[in-house]
Parts: sequence; C-alpha cells; structure tokens
Amino acid sequence: MTIKDRFYDYIQELQDSITSTLEAIDSQVQFQEDLWERAEGGGGRTRVIENGAVFEKGGVNISAVHGALPKSMQTYFGVTDADFFACGLSLVIHPKNPFVPTVHANWRYFEMYDKQGNIVDQWFGGGQDLTPYYLFEEDAQHFHSVCKRACDAHDPEFHGHYKKRCDEYFWNTHRNEARGVGGLFFDYLKASEKRSMEDWYVFVTEVGNSFLEAYVPIVHKRRAMDYTKEQRNWQEIRRGRYVEFNLVHDKGTLFGLRTNGRIESILMSLPPHVQWKYDHHPESGSDEEKLLAVLKHPKEWV
Amino acid sequence: MTIKDRFYDYIQELQDSITSTLEAIDSQVQFQEDLWERAEGGGGRTRVIENGAVFEKGGVNISAVHGALPKSMQTYFGVTDADFFACGLSLVIHPKNPFVPTVHANWRYFEMYDKQGNIVDQWFGGGQDLTPYYLFEEDAQHFHSVCKRACDAHDPEFHGHYKKRCDEYFWNTHRNEARGVGGLFFDYLKASEKRSMEDWYVFVTEVGNSFLEAYVPIVHKRRAMDYTKEQRNWQEIRRGRYVEFNLVHDKGTLFGLRTNGRIESILMSLPPHVQWKYDHHPESGSDEEKLLAVLKHPKEWV
Repeated sequence: MTIKDRFYDYIQELQDSITSTLEAIDSQVQFQEDLWERAEGGGGRTRVIENGAVFEKGGVNISAVHGALPKSMQTYFGVTDADFFACGLSLVIHPKNPFVPTVHANWRYFEMYDKQGNIVDQWFGGGQDLTPYYLFEEDAQHFHSVCKRACDAHDPEFHGHYKKRCDEYFWNTHRNEARGVGGLFFDYLKASEKRSMEDWYVFVTEVGNSFLEAYVPIVHKRRAMDYTKEQRNWQEIRRGRYVEFNLVHDKGTLFGLRTNGRIESILMSLPPHVQWKYDHHPESGSDEEKLLAVLKHPKEWV
Repeated sequence: MTIKDRFYDYIQELQDSITSTLEAIDSQVQFQEDLWERAEGGGGRTRVIENGAVFEKGGVNISAVHGALPKSMQTYFGVTDADFFACGLSLVIHPKNPFVPTVHANWRYFEMYDKQGNIVDQWFGGGQDLTPYYLFEEDAQHFHSVCKRACDAHDPEFHGHYKKRCDEYFWNTHRNEARGVGGLFFDYLKASEKRSMEDWYVFVTEVGNSFLEAYVPIVHKRRAMDYTKEQRNWQEIRRGRYVEFNLVHDKGTLFGLRTNGRIESILMSLPPHVQWKYDHHPESGSDEEKLLAVLKHPKEWV
C-alpha cells in the first residue's frame, strides 16, 4: 500500500478512536456525522458534537480531496499547472467547563503530481496545541511531556524545534500574545538524506496516536470542577481571541474560505458562545492575569 | 479654513451629537471616553457604550492620524515614500433587542503629500449600512429612503450607484450572503471636472448629518418589542456572521490590525455576545428564513 492510502486509512481509524473516546467521556451527547463531496474531487466525513455535558462544541473531521491544483494554491506553492491529493484530520474541542482547556490538532498529508501523474512533491504537516482559560501548570506540563515523548522517540531535536514553531505559529500578532500554551507544529516534512517519507509517516502517526493521552487526562481532572459566572465570562472572552486568531491569522482557515472549501466543516472550529468586551483587563494578581502573563511570554513546560 | 480642518471639526461635532442622542435614548448607561495617541503622529477619541438598556455594545470613534505613509499603505496605494493625513468617524452599534438592527457608519477624509508638503492626492470615503436580525420591510425602506434623500440632493445617480457599491462591499463571500440590508458605500471621492473637493465635502457631511434620522426612528419603533430566548439566539448567531465579515473581509479592520492601529478601537465593532452553531438553518417559512432570503438576494428598498 502507498503512503497515501495507508495515511488515509490511518486518519479514518484515528477519527473513530477519538470520537468514540470523547463520546464515552461526555456520555450525554454523540457526534453527528455529515458526509460531503467536493465537486472537483474527493470529500470528507465531518463529525460534530454540540451541547454535551462536557463538550460544548467540537468537531473531529477528516477529508481527502484531489484534482487540479486550484489557482490560489498554485500561487501559494509557487507552481503552475499541477494535480494534487491532500488528506487530513482536523479537530477542535471546546469544553463547557472553563477549567477544561480547548484543544486543537491536525495531521495532514499532501502530494503533488505532474501531468503524467508522477509524484513531484509530497509532505506531512500538523501538530496539536492546548488553549486553557485558567492555567494549571501540571496540565500544560502533562500535555507537553506527552508531545515530547512522541518526538523523542524519533529525534532528540524534534521537540524543541516543533514546540518553538508552535509558539510562533499560534501567535495572535495583533494582540501580541499566544493563542494558548502551545504544543507541536510542523509542516513540509519531506524526504531527505536523513529521513524517508516512511520515517515521517511513522513520526506523524506517533504524534496522532499520542493525542488522546495528551488531552484526555486533563479533561478527567477538570471536568467536574465548580465554576462561577465570572469564570465562564472569562472563558467566553478568551474564546473571542480564539476566533480572532482563526479568522485573521490561521492559514488553514483562510485557505479554506478562499478556495471554496466546505464552510461548515472549516468553521466548526469557532466556539459556541463568545464575548467581546471593550478593553477588558483582568484584575491585578488574579488567576486570569496569571494566564495572560504566560500567553505574553511562552515558556518551556518540560 | 482648509477642508481637512473643517472636516476634522465636523466629525468631532458629529461624534458629540451622535453620542449624546444615543445616550438620551438609552438612559441607562453613558459612553465611556478614551483618548489615545499614535506614536507616529495623531491619535483619537474612542467612545464606547456597554450594557445599556437599549444598546448592548457600541462605539462611536474618531481619529486623526498623520506622518510617513506606512509601508503596508504604500503597497496598498501603489506609491512610494509619502506623508499622509487621515481622519474619520467610525461607529458600530449593537442593540440588545433582536428586533433593533445593528448599524455601522463611517465618514473619512484622506490627504497624501510629497516631500515638500504639497497635497498630491485627497479623497473622501464612507457610508452607512443596516444589519437587521429580523426583517421589517418598512425599516429597511425608511433607512434607504433617508440615504436616498441625502444622495438626491447632489446627483440623481448617486443613490443607485452607492447603494450598489454597498451591497457589493458588505458581501460575505464565503457565506454567499450580504452582511445586512445595505445602505451607502463610497470611496475615493476625488476632485474632477464635474465636482470639486468642496462639493464632495458637502455631500459626505450631508450623509453624515442624515445618520441619526436614518437610524433613530427604527430604534424607537422596535426597542420595546418583546422577544424570546430563541429570537435572541438567532441574533447571536447572525452576529457571528458580522464577526466573520469584519475579521475576514473588511478592509478597514484588516488594515488597522496590520498597521498597528489601536486594537481596542478597531475591534469595538465586534458584538458583545455571539454564537456559532454547526450548520444552522432556520425553519422553512420562518421569520429567520425570510431574512436570509433577502440577504441572499439584495433588493431595492426605495
């Protein structure tokens, strides 16, 4: 089997495993599935959960699309006429309890072909990152340590490198702060003298396999904590920053919106309830301010 | 007095008149004022109202900035090294009651100078547009008829032209629908054989003067209407589309975010409480669906 077919099988299985695990945790609601087709080739399987006991809104989506490379992607990749195949899993989970962090992950594979159908370029990309509303250092440490273990199995330099790229990528420039406490981000993982595509396949799927271990223990630990109306307000205000990042800066989101992607699958990442207050600043010395301090200056967690 | 000085005086007075009128309507809360300075030259007077009896959130802001034309603006205008002056009033009002529409307006003036300080280019821009959550045809007709009257006093072709430009500009391409029911939009109003800058000054200030007449009667008519939790939810979902437009498509917002503008003044346009639901569709034949039908196919109101 080609890497492409194996990876597509992999993300289908991973989607099943993630959605069934999250459903078992929530117990109140299940994911609703939408199958969709792309007119130019391919399609996807969108699974969305809403109004759960634990998960207020979330999506765990896979897609596999192919065909002629759209004009906007030609410009983006600096190539002319070409065909492509892309598949991936994208997930965003917005829990109800403000002490449970939002999580995002994505693992994707891309192939580009010449007119004879030969592969002329291919790469993996993705990562996973955590966006808490209240900072529990042990949670950030846990998430990052699972990420680090997945990286360390392949190269001792991976974790430092991809952790830094994550902090850089999820930077809300117009707010001068990070979206969350980071995790891993990698892109254009291509074959080199040092590593084959097979090596990258093993690495990316290892990161994918680590996701539930990185996130689920945090959900269990925080899901039953009591919270106040004010803490919920803070969560909704911070979700506003999440929206700002995704709509203003996130390359994947903007790309989807400009290339006639399936809008509802792309924008499933937006939180269910969001607030914007004018010039809001948390009280000095508060827990809310402690979170901001870390977002302003990303730190090493492990 | 130069046009620049007269227009800056004008927007200061207009800000006073609009904020005092809206305060009198709300009666519960007042605008809070923030004066701010721009490091590179100029500054602004931001006035924000929050948690009122009628107005849930809104800003009526003026600014006057000047200095060397920032790199990003050089690229945008296709000029090299130049100095500039820009001033304007921007307002967005998000009422609490879902039957009272959101309104946006902006009137601005721009000058560009060579190194000797001579004006090498100058223009007016702006407009005003209405975003209802429930469609009352008489309200849309009233708003547009006031806009038309302001236009007709100057040129019988203005209203048709600037109404169409408004429908085009406030088009949420990724949703394939209008942000609201439109109004007026104009830009790069420059001196020509037919019209002097003085003529444009008179036109733009006439539109500015028409704003309260266009909007306030609608507020009075709808502010005390009873509404349900479901109608409020619909308002918050539609506000999500407002956020999407402003963060993904609105040139002014993106420009401000990229040129290190005063973020809180720019993002005062974002609504206070917003919802995103996955793949939401109103019931067939409902009032919510009637609004969508008009947003999909902008119509002539007068």
